[in-house]
Parts: sequence; structure tokens; C-alpha cells
Amino acid sequence: MEYRVFDDKILVRLDRGDEITASLLDVAEREHITLAKVQGIGAVDDFTVGVFDLEESKYRPFRFDGNHEINALVGNLTTKDNRPYLHLHITCTGLDGKVVGGHLLSAKVSLTAEIFISLAKGEVDRAFDSDLSINRIKF
Amino acid sequence: MEYRVFDDKILVRLDRGDEITASLLDVAEREHITLAKVQGIGAVDDFTVGVFDLEESKYRPFRFDGNHEINALVGNLTTKDNRPYLHLHITCTGLDGKVVGGHLLSAKVSLTAEIFISLAKGEVDRAFDSDLSINRIKF
Amino acid sequence: MEYRVFDDKILVRLDRGDEITASLLDVAEREHITLAKVQGIGAVDDFTVGVFDLEESKYRPFRFDGNHEINALVGNLTTKDNRPYLHLHITCTGLDGKVVGGHLLSAKVSLTAEIFISLAKGEVDRAFDSDLSINRIKF
Repeated sequence: MEYRVFDDKILVRLDRGDEITASLLDVAEREHITLAKVQGIGAVDDFTVGVFDLEESKYRPFRFDGNHEINALVGNLTTKDNRPYLHLHITCTGLDGKVVGGHLLSAKVSLTAEIFISLAKGEVDRAFDSDLSINRIKF
Repeated sequence: MEYRVFDDKILVRLDRGDEITASLLDVAEREHITLAKVQGIGAVDDFTVGVFDLEESKYRPFRFDGNHEINALVGNLTTKDNRPYLHLHITCTGLDGKVVGGHLLSAKVSLTAEIFISLAKGEVDRAFDSDLSINRIKF
Repeated sequence: MEYRVFDDKILVRLDRGDEITASLLDVAEREHITLAKVQGIGAVDDFTVGVFDLEESKYRPFRFDGNHEINALVGNLTTKDNRPYLHLHITCTGLDGKVVGGHLLSAKVSLTAEIFISLAKGEVDRAFDSDLSINRIKF
């Protein structure tokens, strides 16, 4: 991973083997990010997404391997318990042309990833919502 | 719905039952938004998208229910007839792992939605284009 | 194509027949863009995407026709060899409701496209990486 800060935007380049969520949380820790938009593209070859099952109150996981383009990586950085908190969703296409995606649980970069973190001037926290079973934004 | 303004970005949290387009237009009215980018993620369980049929000059609707992750919600706020005008497209994944999406007609939040409105310093209007049968941006 | 510059954001409207990558590179040349995020929506009816095949070190192309909504157009503008360089990924839905996408190779607008270019204060270059067979970001 390498990244550069350009005023209120950070461009992150991830390399083969980098795990996306761990890498972006690392940038967030180092740069003391409290609120930001995240947007990126790239390619991954081992990733797991979840789709929330409202009846079971948990994510149903879907794991994929083989190279996939990241068509869109979208989400945000906030805080929880005074630490950076990352919430990302992803859409990908595999070599068979099939499109998959969901709530990003983990993803290893296969080729490269190019991710913009756009800093907002503020801080937004989260708290666990026991009714929803998610870490919900708390203004 | 709750939202906060952070300089040139607004973070909107939508809650179970909130309709996305009505909610964002409400924010746009209240904050007098004349031009902005929109980007978000979340989950919905009753939504309708359209794919424009060029021969019939109208959107072919597709309606979905059951919980779906919003992989990407992308679009803009402009104005039309001196009112905020919202144009959003969406990509979602259902519990069967199938990805669907298109031009967003309406969507009810199931769990939460986290949407950034990034304000631009300007105003862009739309006018109905009778050849295309759409409300086209008019600079 | 028409576009307007609003401080650090450029809104581009593409019209029927405009090729997306050529049009955005044209804006980048004219506006001397050295680093930017790109995000948009719209509709296309003749487009080709690629999914990188790691074993063959090249993009496997998929071509589509018939009208498709652009659910999400995401990427960036950097430079290579002192010229603007565009890297875009796309997700689309066809009239049959099927979602397709990948690394954007070319795309002709069918109806309209509304694309924001968000300028970053900086310059990021690329160089061909012979191991990966891609033009990788070089900080």
C-alpha cells in the first residue's frame, strides 16, 4: 500500500495481497480520520460480502475467488469507541461476466486498487443498535 | 431520518421505512441545495428501478422486495422549475446473491442508509426534452 | 457534450452518440486536469467492458448493445506521459434486468450521461508495470 494526501482528498493505491478493509483502517488511524467518504475501483481475487438477513439478524456471507474487477467500492469512514470505523459496499464482475456484491466483509487485492478517501470536516460516531443488530450512525 | 451538515458535505442517515427519494428531496428543500453529488450505501426491502426503453420512450419498471444491500447509490441533485430535482441510480444485492439495479424510482429503507450529499457551488437546471422524453440537464 | 466548472467540481453532460472515455479525456485536456475523482450515471447502448485475466495478462472483453442504465460510473483521472489518463469502471442494467459491468473500455451514450469530475489539488502519474501488465499509479 502507498498513499498520498492532497488537501482534503487521500488517494490510496493498494497492491497485490493487500486486504482492503485493514489497509483503509490503517490509513484512517495514521491520518486521524473522523469522517470521510470512500470511493474506489480495482481488482480482487478473494473476497467475502454479506447480505443482511433481517430474520436472523446477521449477514449471510458469500465468498468469491478468481479475479474480479471492482466495478464500484463505495462507503464511509466514521468512528466507533474512539477508533476509525469503516463501512464499505462493493460491486464486482468475475471472468465469467457475472456481477456480484454486497456489504464488504473482506477482500484481497489481486492487481491494484485505487481508492479516494474524501475528508469531511467533522466527526460522526456509531453505537450498536440492539434492535437492528448493526453499528448505526449516531449523530 | 437525521442529517448533519459538515461544511460542503451533508451526511444523511435514513431509518427503517424512510423512502430514499422523498427523504433526500426533503433535505434538499430544507438546505436550499441547487447542485450536489450524491453517493451512498445501505439496505432496502421494497424498491422499484427503471430501465429506459428507447422505443417506448419510457422506463420499464422492475420491482423488488425482501432485504437487499445497496451496493452503490449514485447520482445528483439539480433543480427543475425552481425546485430540487433528484436523479439517482442504484445497484443492490438480494439474499439470493443476485445483483439488480437501474434508475431509482422509489425505495424504502429496511435497516439503515448512509448517504453523502456533496455540495457544489452553483446551480444547474433541467428542462423536459420532448425528443428524449427525459428531464435533461440544461446549462 | 457540454460541461461547466463549479469551483473544484466539473459537471459533464454527455449526449446521444458521445463516447464516454474520449469525451472525458477531452475535458481533462481542456481543463488541464492532473488528478480527479470521477462519478456518474446515465445510459449507454453500445459498450465494452473488460475483466482482467491474470493468467493471460490481458482484459477479457465483454460487449453489450441495447439500452442499458449506467447504475454507477466510478474512477479517476491521473496523468501518464504528461497526458490525462482515465481509469473508469462501470455497472449497467439492460432491458432484461440483467446487471453487467467491469473495467470500461468504451461506451456510447444512448440518452444522456451526467458525470461529476471532482478535482484534487495535486498530480499523480502512472507507469506501465511489466509484471502486472497494467498502467499502475506511481506516487
